[in-house]
Amino acid sequence: MQGNLLYAQSGGVTAVINASACAVIETARKHKVRVLAARNGIIGALREELIDTSKESASAIAALRHTPGGAFGSCRFKLKSIEQNRAQYERLIDVFRAHDIRWFLYNGGNDSADTANKISQIGKALGHDVTVVGVPKTVDNDLAVTDCCPGFGSVAKYTAVSVLEASLDVASMAESSTKVFVMEVMGRHAGWIAAAAGLAGKSADEAPHIILFPEIPFDEAGFLARVKATVERVGWCTVVVSEGVRNKEGRFLSEVGTRDAFGHAQLGGVAPLLADLVKRNLGYKYHWALPDYLQRSARHIASKTDVEHAYAVGKAGVEYALAGKNAVMPVIVRTGDAPYRWKIEAAPLGKVANHEKTLPKSFIRRDGYGITEAARRYLEPLIRGEEAPPSGKDGLPKYVRLKNVAVKKKLPAYAIDG
Amino acid sequence: MQGNLLYAQSGGVTAVINASACAVIETARKHKVRVLAARNGIIGALREELIDTSKESASAIAALRHTPGGAFGSCRFKLKSIEQNRAQYERLIDVFRAHDIRWFLYNGGNDSADTANKISQIGKALGHDVTVVGVPKTVDNDLAVTDCCPGFGSVAKYTAVSVLEASLDVASMAESSTKVFVMEVMGRHAGWIAAAAGLAGKSADEAPHIILFPEIPFDEAGFLARVKATVERVGWCTVVVSEGVRNKEGRFLSEVGTRDAFGHAQLGGVAPLLADLVKRNLGYKYHWALPDYLQRSARHIASKTDVEHAYAVGKAGVEYALAGKNAVMPVIVRTGDAPYRWKIEAAPLGKVANHEKTLPKSFIRRDGYGITEAARRYLEPLIRGEEAPPSGKDGLPKYVRLKNVAVKKKLPAYAIDG
Repeated sequence: MQGNLLYAQSGGVTAVINASACAVIETARKHKVRVLAARNGIIGALREELIDTSKESASAIAALRHTPGGAFGSCRFKLKSIEQNRAQYERLIDVFRAHDIRWFLYNGGNDSADTANKISQIGKALGHDVTVVGVPKTVDNDLAVTDCCPGFGSVAKYTAVSVLEASLDVASMAESSTKVFVMEVMGRHAGWIAAAAGLAGKSADEAPHIILFPEIPFDEAGFLARVKATVERVGWCTVVVSEGVRNKEGRFLSEVGTRDAFGHAQLGGVAPLLADLVKRNLGYKYHWALPDYLQRSARHIASKTDVEHAYAVGKAGVEYALAGKNAVMPVIVRTGDAPYRWKIEAAPLGKVANHEKTLPKSFIRRDGYGITEAARRYLEPLIRGEEAPPSGKDGLPKYVRLKNVAVKKKLPAYAIDG
Repeated sequence: MQGNLLYAQSGGVTAVINASACAVIETARKHKVRVLAARNGIIGALREELIDTSKESASAIAALRHTPGGAFGSCRFKLKSIEQNRAQYERLIDVFRAHDIRWFLYNGGNDSADTANKISQIGKALGHDVTVVGVPKTVDNDLAVTDCCPGFGSVAKYTAVSVLEASLDVASMAESSTKVFVMEVMGRHAGWIAAAAGLAGKSADEAPHIILFPEIPFDEAGFLARVKATVERVGWCTVVVSEGVRNKEGRFLSEVGTRDAFGHAQLGGVAPLLADLVKRNLGYKYHWALPDYLQRSARHIASKTDVEHAYAVGKAGVEYALAGKNAVMPVIVRTGDAPYRWKIEAAPLGKVANHEKTLPKSFIRRDGYGITEAARRYLEPLIRGEEAPPSGKDGLPKYVRLKNVAVKKKLPAYAIDG
C-alpha cells in the first residue's frame, strides 16, 4: 500500500509496550507498509525526528516482543487544545505530509487517546488525510471501555509475586527479627496495582494482611490496631500501600508528614513513613521496599496474558488503520472468566479519551483493607502465565537494542514551546 | 543408620536456602536417616521446638528446591562463647541426647560457622557424640574459603536484571522526564551485591553508570560531577548504591544526613538521600528504588548456578556428616572460568568461622565507580541460567508450605536468656 505508517509511544513505558510495537511493525510488514517511529514520542514527531524501522532485521523486531522499556523512546508531553496551540497540530500535519504518513498509531493512555482523537479530526481540515488509531497502554489500568490495559497485567504479576516471595522471607525471620514489612506500589489515583497485590494470598492469614488503597482515607488508629492484631495472630504482618494513599482531608500521606515525625517530604515514599509510624507506636522491627520502576519494567516476570494483549492491540491497530477506521482504539473485551476468554474490538477514541476507569467499590473488601472475590475473578486471569525472555550466556535476559536509524529531515527545525 | 539428623537454618534467609534443605532431606532419606528441623533456627533447638520432616511427602520436599524463604524458620541469634554461657551449650546437647540427634547440620553464614564449630567440640566433652557440619549460605558472599556463597548468585542475578530493566525504562523517558535513577542494594560491609549490578552493562555508556561501594569513601563532589557528565553524554544516568556506603570519616551515609538536607535518619535509605542530593545540586528529575527483601527472596529469577550450588552443599553436608566428618563445611571450589567448572570439598569449620571475605581491590575499577574484568569473570558464572519455579493456574509460582509437624517435647521448658 502507498504511504508510511507512523508509530509513537507515549507516557510512562511498561514491560510490554514493545510487544505492541513488535505487533505494529510485523503486521505492517505483512501488508508491505513501512513503519516510521517517532523518537521519544510525540516530541519526535513535532521535531521531525523519525526512525526508519525498515532498517531493523526481522529478528530484532521479533525481539521487541520480550524487551521492556520503550524501544523508540517515549515522553510525557500533552498537546494543548487546537484552540490554544493550533500551530502544533499544523506542524504535525506538515511532518505527516512531508513523510507521506497515511496512518498514525499512538500507543499510550488517557491523554494520548485524547491527542489521537484531536489529530484524527484535524488532518482532513488541513488537507492531509491521515487515519489515526490509538493503541492502549498503561500500568495504571485506568482506560475506559477496554476491560484492562496492556502493561497492567505484568505490573500486577510482579507485585503479587514480590509480595508472596518477600512475605515468605519475613515469615521465616519474624521470631527474632522483622515483624512488619511494608511495600509501596504505584497508583497515584487508583488502587489497581495495590489490589493486584491481594492476589498473593487467599486466606486472611496469608500476606498481604493489609492493603492501603488510594480510594480509602487513611485511618491511623485503625491501621495500627490492625497491624498489632495481625502480628499477635500471625506472628508478622505484610502491608501493601499505594503511593496514592490519602488522609481524611484528601491530601497525599507522603506530603503531610512533618519533618520531625516523617522526615523530609521531598524524599518521598509513603512506605518508610508507615514503617516509622509502626515502629514508634508499636515498637515492631520493620523493613520496607519501594520497587519503583522495577515494577513496571520487570519483563522477566511479565504476564503471558498481558504480552498477548499487548501484541493483539498492536496488530489490530494496524489492521484498523489500513482498513481506514479513523479515530478508533482496539480494546480488550472479556467474554468469559472461567476459562478466561477475550477478544479485540474497535472502540471510538472519543469514548476512551478523558475518562478514567476507577477501581470499583465492589473490588474493595468492606473493611477497606483487602480485595473481594469479584476483584480476584477480574484480576487473576490478567497475571496468568509467563513468556520469559530468552536468557544469554551472561545470565541476563536477551533484550534488543534497535539501531534506530534516523530518517532524513525535510522540514525546517521546529522549537516546541509547549 | 541409627539416630536422627538435625537441620537448622540461621540468619537472613535467601532465595535458595530451601534448596539446601531439600538436598539435606532428600539425601538423608536415601540413607534412611530421619531429619528433624529446628523451628526458627537455633532458638527452636534450644526450646526443643523440633519439626519432624518425615511427615512431609516426597513432592513437598522436592518443592523446597524452588521455594524461597526459610521453610522451618530462621533467626538472628548468636550463641555466646562457651565460657560466657555454658548452660546454652549444655541445653543444646540435652536436646540432642533426648532426640537421639547424631548429626547436626547448621545452614548459615559466618556466625553460624563459628557456632557450629563450638558445638562440634562440646558434644564429646558432655558425653554425647554428635557430628557437626556447617552448610554455607549468605547473600553477603562474605564466607572465607568457599569460592562463593549459596544465596549470593541469585541476589546478584536479581540485581543485574533489575538494573538492566529499569534502565531501559529510564532511557525511554529521559528526554522529557526522569534523568537520574538510583537503586539501593544490600551489603552493609562489602560491595559484592553492588558489584553484581555492574554485570547489567558492558560498555561505559551502559547502565549502571555509577556504582557506589562501601569500600570506597563517598566523595560528594566527585559523584555529582560524574552524574552530570553522564547525563550530558548519555542523556540519563543509573546509579547503584550499596546500603553500606560511608563518608570519609567512615560513618554510614544514611546516618549522617541532617534532618533539613537529608530527612529523618531512622527512615533509612541512602537512595532517596542521593536522589535528593542530585536534585538539589543538579536539578535533574529523579526516581529511586529500594527493593530490600525483594532482592533476596526473588526465587522466580534465581540463578541456576546458585540453585545447583545450594543443593550440592546440602547434599555434601549430609554425606560428610554420615561419614563422621566432624567440624567441616562443604565449600564450593572453582576449577575453571570458561567454561565455568566447580566442585565441592570439605573445609574445616575453624578456617571458615570468624573470617570475612571482602571484595578484592582488583574487582573495583580504578576510578572507584565500576567493576573490572576480573570481577566480571568471577561474577558472571554465578548468575548464569534460570530454574524457574512451576507456575500455577493463579499466575503465581507454586511455592510449598510444609506441614511442619512438631516433635513431642521430652524435656522441661527452657527460657533463652541470651
